[in-house]
Amino acid sequence: MDYSQASLDKHKQFKGKIGISSKFGPVTTREDLSIAYTPGVAAVSKLLASNPEEAYNYSIKSNAVAVISDGSAVLGLGNIGPLGALPVMEGKALLFKEFGGVDAYPIVLDTQDPDEVINIVKNIAPGFGGINLEDFSAPNCFYIENKLKEILNIPVMHDDQHGTAIVVLAALINSLKLSARTPENTSVTIVGAGAAGTAIAKLLVLFGIKDILVLDTKGIISKDRTDLNDAKKEFLNFTNPQNLSGDLAVAMTSRDVFIGVSGPNILTADMVKTMNQKPIIFAMANPTPEIDPQVARDAGAFIVGTGRSDYPNQINNVLAFPGIFRGALDHRVTKITDDMKLAAAHAIANYLPESELSVDNIIPSPLDKGVAQCVAAVIK
Amino acid sequence: MDYSQASLDKHKQFKGKIGISSKFGPVTTREDLSIAYTPGVAAVSKLLASNPEEAYNYSIKSNAVAVISDGSAVLGLGNIGPLGALPVMEGKALLFKEFGGVDAYPIVLDTQDPDEVINIVKNIAPGFGGINLEDFSAPNCFYIENKLKEILNIPVMHDDQHGTAIVVLAALINSLKLSARTPENTSVTIVGAGAAGTAIAKLLVLFGIKDILVLDTKGIISKDRTDLNDAKKEFLNFTNPQNLSGDLAVAMTSRDVFIGVSGPNILTADMVKTMNQKPIIFAMANPTPEIDPQVARDAGAFIVGTGRSDYPNQINNVLAFPGIFRGALDHRVTKITDDMKLAAAHAIANYLPESELSVDNIIPSPLDKGVAQCVAAVIK
Repeated sequence: MDYSQASLDKHKQFKGKIGISSKFGPVTTREDLSIAYTPGVAAVSKLLASNPEEAYNYSIKSNAVAVISDGSAVLGLGNIGPLGALPVMEGKALLFKEFGGVDAYPIVLDTQDPDEVINIVKNIAPGFGGINLEDFSAPNCFYIENKLKEILNIPVMHDDQHGTAIVVLAALINSLKLSARTPENTSVTIVGAGAAGTAIAKLLVLFGIKDILVLDTKGIISKDRTDLNDAKKEFLNFTNPQNLSGDLAVAMTSRDVFIGVSGPNILTADMVKTMNQKPIIFAMANPTPEIDPQVARDAGAFIVGTGRSDYPNQINNVLAFPGIFRGALDHRVTKITDDMKLAAAHAIANYLPESELSVDNIIPSPLDKGVAQCVAAVIK
Repeated sequence: MDYSQASLDKHKQFKGKIGISSKFGPVTTREDLSIAYTPGVAAVSKLLASNPEEAYNYSIKSNAVAVISDGSAVLGLGNIGPLGALPVMEGKALLFKEFGGVDAYPIVLDTQDPDEVINIVKNIAPGFGGINLEDFSAPNCFYIENKLKEILNIPVMHDDQHGTAIVVLAALINSLKLSARTPENTSVTIVGAGAAGTAIAKLLVLFGIKDILVLDTKGIISKDRTDLNDAKKEFLNFTNPQNLSGDLAVAMTSRDVFIGVSGPNILTADMVKTMNQKPIIFAMANPTPEIDPQVARDAGAFIVGTGRSDYPNQINNVLAFPGIFRGALDHRVTKITDDMKLAAAHAIANYLPESELSVDNIIPSPLDKGVAQCVAAVIK
């Protein structure tokens, strides 16, 4: 089903998706005004100025996350700028509240200069307890996130990287259980060498996968390529152990897992047929997957996951980011570490009891509001 | 009454004052998720990317104001930094919602470099329909506001300047009615040459007051002073027509109106006694006024106004800023002009019917939620 018109209508009806609410209740008496604002608030200001840690007890910093985008890589739409990004960031803020109880506010930037972005985020950070970077394009996203993690003492996460990697790993953990594989003996082909592909590859290595191929639009990333930028050269350190070269057809032959974070319809039924027994296909391009799920099944796929809500096994970041920031805020975590990401993936995977696991049920529903709490519990 | 402990307690209980709410209602079905977020939201993103004006119809930009501070001049507390400012900005956001229905979000900055502030505000502006600058110290506040008004095509207002000036003028308009004065024949002495004093002086000139003295901590600002910075030199163009020099005692002799935006207890009963008949005293230093209202009355003051909620005639910005931004957003105003400020002051003054005017009732209660609508109506 096409939700475009329904979404346009609802956004127009409400003029956006989020608003501000009062935690103090209505202001109707002089006393209300004197407590929420002057003169009473001066005591709170003085306390926070002299003891900054108390901001976590007396201000919104305790529960506030900035959802920040420069609009350079919005959904599958590309570089459409800050206003194009705004409805997505509002949606994210709404899901933060709905699934994690986090008060997130969308901030879209009128610059795509990475150093300017870093300076802006650093300088607006004091009132926030966390920073969710969103829809920044590669390779700038790596530089921006790394630098901000270095500078700031609040958690910073680029969700397109790590949120995606965590939910993909969660889906993979349960898929390996169902197909009786171990990480060491599983080969994975990832298509898409941007933010998501990079973070997925790195997290899978930490999980124990030894044999990963990563492809960009020009084919397998190998030592023989002469066109790699610095970010892509990094893949050579931890992927493609046999230094394979070639296109997707080469990269699919005798492989166990396909992970697509690229574009529509690049994977064919014939390629699926060349994979190992019980092939696992995560075709997550949005809105049109790398292969139609039914076509993949007919070609022999054992498990098929997508980003779509109208097929089984929806691999959706909403399973990760609300719980990650909920946990980070609750436990006053200052960095989201690799161990936390692995723990989050296991928490999502284990949320489904083994008795309920099946090829059409490898990951909890994105609508299950219990998942965020289980993720939050391990972010500490 | 001291509201410090009550304010500390309530801020701690709720961990700050504001939160995020959903305008779309709960997300419980796949359809909800597909309309608020992907894939449906892509249609909204595409529309806004190609037609930025539609952000006012389909996103929070239509009703969102950033409340921004660098913490350099917070209440009467001085330069206490961003975390000290945060509770005040949250309070402002709460009042914006409560009195104007405006969704305002507090952003406190980790820099006080004016050019950096300008660059940050410019770059976070796309998602906002207005910018409320707050608690920036003079003279930086003038430079920052002027530059941002030049750069941005959304309304920018430094409330400590213009909000204050508007409510002071509103109080003055009704005080002149009660004391049967005309602007042309009224002399005004303003103590405080910072953000508020400057804006008050300028707006009073536009209103028609011809004889204004402005004092800083060193006395009357006159051509004979050799210690004036550029911002203070500007006063020489429109105040002190007789080039008086001297201290506050000199500046109070044979004057009609005292306006204090300075510090506690600088005005004495003896000085009030040297003023003209039916003297008008607005002693707005917070929390302790320039003169105790009862002392002023006993010395012969005809009308006394303060910033305090426990005396009559509370001159409080909340009478202005919610309505100003409400009107600016509703009428898609891109600049708050001098004419709008004058109109806002008249709207606040006229909100009180003449039959209700008295020396103890020169301005509406800050709790009267009807005022904002009347102000909003003239911001166009």
